[in-house]
Amino acid sequence: MLVQKYKDMLSGKSVIRQLSEFATARGAEIGYENVFDYSLGNPSVPVPREFTDQMIHMLNSMSTNELHGYSPSLGITSVREKIAASLEKRFGLPYRKEHIFMASGAAGALAHAFRLVTEPGDEIITFAPFFPEYHPYVDLTGAVLKVVPPDTEAFQINFEAFEGMIHEKTMAVMINTPNNPSGVLYSAVTLQRLADVLRRKSEELGHTIYLISDEPYREIVFGGAEVPCVSAFYENTIMCYSFSKSLSLPGERIGYVAIHPACRDAETMVNMCGQISRGIGHNCPPSIIQLAVAEVLDLTSDLSVYETNMNILYEELMDLGFTCVKPDGTFYIFPKALEADAKAFCEKALKYDLILVPGDTFGAPGFFRMAYCIDTEKVERSLPALRRFVKETYGR
Amino acid sequence: MLVQKYKDMLSGKSVIRQLSEFATARGAEIGYENVFDYSLGNPSVPVPREFTDQMIHMLNSMSTNELHGYSPSLGITSVREKIAASLEKRFGLPYRKEHIFMASGAAGALAHAFRLVTEPGDEIITFAPFFPEYHPYVDLTGAVLKVVPPDTEAFQINFEAFEGMIHEKTMAVMINTPNNPSGVLYSAVTLQRLADVLRRKSEELGHTIYLISDEPYREIVFGGAEVPCVSAFYENTIMCYSFSKSLSLPGERIGYVAIHPACRDAETMVNMCGQISRGIGHNCPPSIIQLAVAEVLDLTSDLSVYETNMNILYEELMDLGFTCVKPDGTFYIFPKALEADAKAFCEKALKYDLILVPGDTFGAPGFFRMAYCIDTEKVERSLPALRRFVKETYGR
Repeated sequence: MLVQKYKDMLSGKSVIRQLSEFATARGAEIGYENVFDYSLGNPSVPVPREFTDQMIHMLNSMSTNELHGYSPSLGITSVREKIAASLEKRFGLPYRKEHIFMASGAAGALAHAFRLVTEPGDEIITFAPFFPEYHPYVDLTGAVLKVVPPDTEAFQINFEAFEGMIHEKTMAVMINTPNNPSGVLYSAVTLQRLADVLRRKSEELGHTIYLISDEPYREIVFGGAEVPCVSAFYENTIMCYSFSKSLSLPGERIGYVAIHPACRDAETMVNMCGQISRGIGHNCPPSIIQLAVAEVLDLTSDLSVYETNMNILYEELMDLGFTCVKPDGTFYIFPKALEADAKAFCEKALKYDLILVPGDTFGAPGFFRMAYCIDTEKVERSLPALRRFVKETYGR
Repeated sequence: MLVQKYKDMLSGKSVIRQLSEFATARGAEIGYENVFDYSLGNPSVPVPREFTDQMIHMLNSMSTNELHGYSPSLGITSVREKIAASLEKRFGLPYRKEHIFMASGAAGALAHAFRLVTEPGDEIITFAPFFPEYHPYVDLTGAVLKVVPPDTEAFQINFEAFEGMIHEKTMAVMINTPNNPSGVLYSAVTLQRLADVLRRKSEELGHTIYLISDEPYREIVFGGAEVPCVSAFYENTIMCYSFSKSLSLPGERIGYVAIHPACRDAETMVNMCGQISRGIGHNCPPSIIQLAVAEVLDLTSDLSVYETNMNILYEELMDLGFTCVKPDGTFYIFPKALEADAKAFCEKALKYDLILVPGDTFGAPGFFRMAYCIDTEKVERSLPALRRFVKETYGR
């Protein structure tokens, strides 16, 4: 007998995936270059040359058993050391290799974080708008994801609703800043207030509420904004990082868990990650990718195109009278739709070959997401379509 | 609060790991070349040159976004097609890409297989001697691993004990042939009888008992033996393969699940694997490794050194009066210890810098495992130590 819960999931296709498939099908008809596909968050800028050079150098010079051999279950020691040193230098917190666990991208990192601090039935709170994959990621562990309704003014945190949702089953809070889909960075004020609430509630409840910080967009920030270091605000933070976006390596499944050095049991938690791996068939990210990434830790792809695209789109959306919080980073923008039903809005946009994703699936009905990790030239070519869509459909 | 079950696992260090650490520590004292470390099943032969060339070729010629981009959740389509074609050609079963799910090595493949067919509380039966990691792999899903006692004469299957253990909770049976630790290949007679039992019991119980076939050692066989294709005997087979041993790539985490083409719901099962991934943070093996392996599917490393080593050791063990089933493949041999307590036997061997692993952890007390994936020169140098150990300890 096949397990029903996974079978049932097959009928519930993700909206993003459906739209992306529509874009591909439409592309086959009219040429994909004519489909303004803002559906997928797939990095579009090249990988840094240094990464490729490092890969080729290792393939040419290292013994194959050394290069492709088993990684220790927590990750390759020298790689963990380099990541800890890089984090310490950047954020001023005394990370050591004992705080670092190598993971298969952010999804792998989160899979470990959830299992560290929740048993089935326990709750993890996150904040809308949020990455919809959090639902299967959490729900399939047996824990329960609770979603705080959005602060639709600034896409910071709706603290009133949040505080009311914390109770004895709350074991962790998960944030994603810079945020997919809003593009917004949580401010230092927000993070401080969040830390205060977590400390107070932890004390009231008599158990630690951990903060799981999902940070794959940390390097993609605009206008020289400084990204507040989430871990600096709260010692019980489990940082989940991925190199997928910063180095344009989403297919290579490389990231890490970094436990705050001042977190009680930090080392134990990293060792526990090694045990969790055995149950989920994880067994470390690829050795060659661990070794190559460790040599380019402080580099990123040229991410400036995302800012260029954001500015073009933001200006156009403002011109057209949209309400929109200006993104601080990522490659997403999350404007308010021009009618209450964002699904209907996005449906109508399809006639103009504009692929927009309704915000319902992100926990923010009435908004829509555009993923502008596409060529600037295409963003520019999409503007007339956007204008025609708005004018002909909404008379603006 | 940290999850206790993972915390508890930290105190139970694996015997193999402890012995390997001892070997490393002893190596620091007397030089690792003087420690006859038969503890770890780590491939020691080089990766085929063609794999390395393919990696370098792709790094030099492909766009980085194409090379390192997200893999579809079931694996890269062209890679799945090539694997299906290779399996069809080799085993004569009509595999298509729809039957293939790309997984992170055998551990990743098994993690999906268990979740396809078991709910918490369900049982999976395996046969001693068996790979001890099967316990955390299965137990941490909530299912229960049941172990059939060994057939210590031939290390085939103890069918009498097996049949008595099948009941309504039995959802799957897992085999590993060629076998770690015995090195034995299940014969066609064994596999046919197993299939007959599974068909009869499935009918009696009114539910399919799936066969999970863990085949990472499939390519390492000796004396030109033909490996019977497990899937050819039973249509409800979930093949779990890894390239770790055949291509000496254990660190790159690459393998696949192949559902028997005649298995009812084969395609659905592959699609379900894509859903299971979301809950365990799997999200596909690395893209570049998928693409490179697809170009060398019908190659292996030069595996002949394992046969050379086996023959040297087997002959010596026979000379010394050990009882031992001659391995058909793998890089393991599993002789009977010279006293009833194999732990004591292996403990005494340490004085001769011989690192042997007691069979208790493999479900076969009284035996011990030697992993001879080391240089032949070292195997030869170990023989005097082995002779001295046996003579001085057991008077032979």
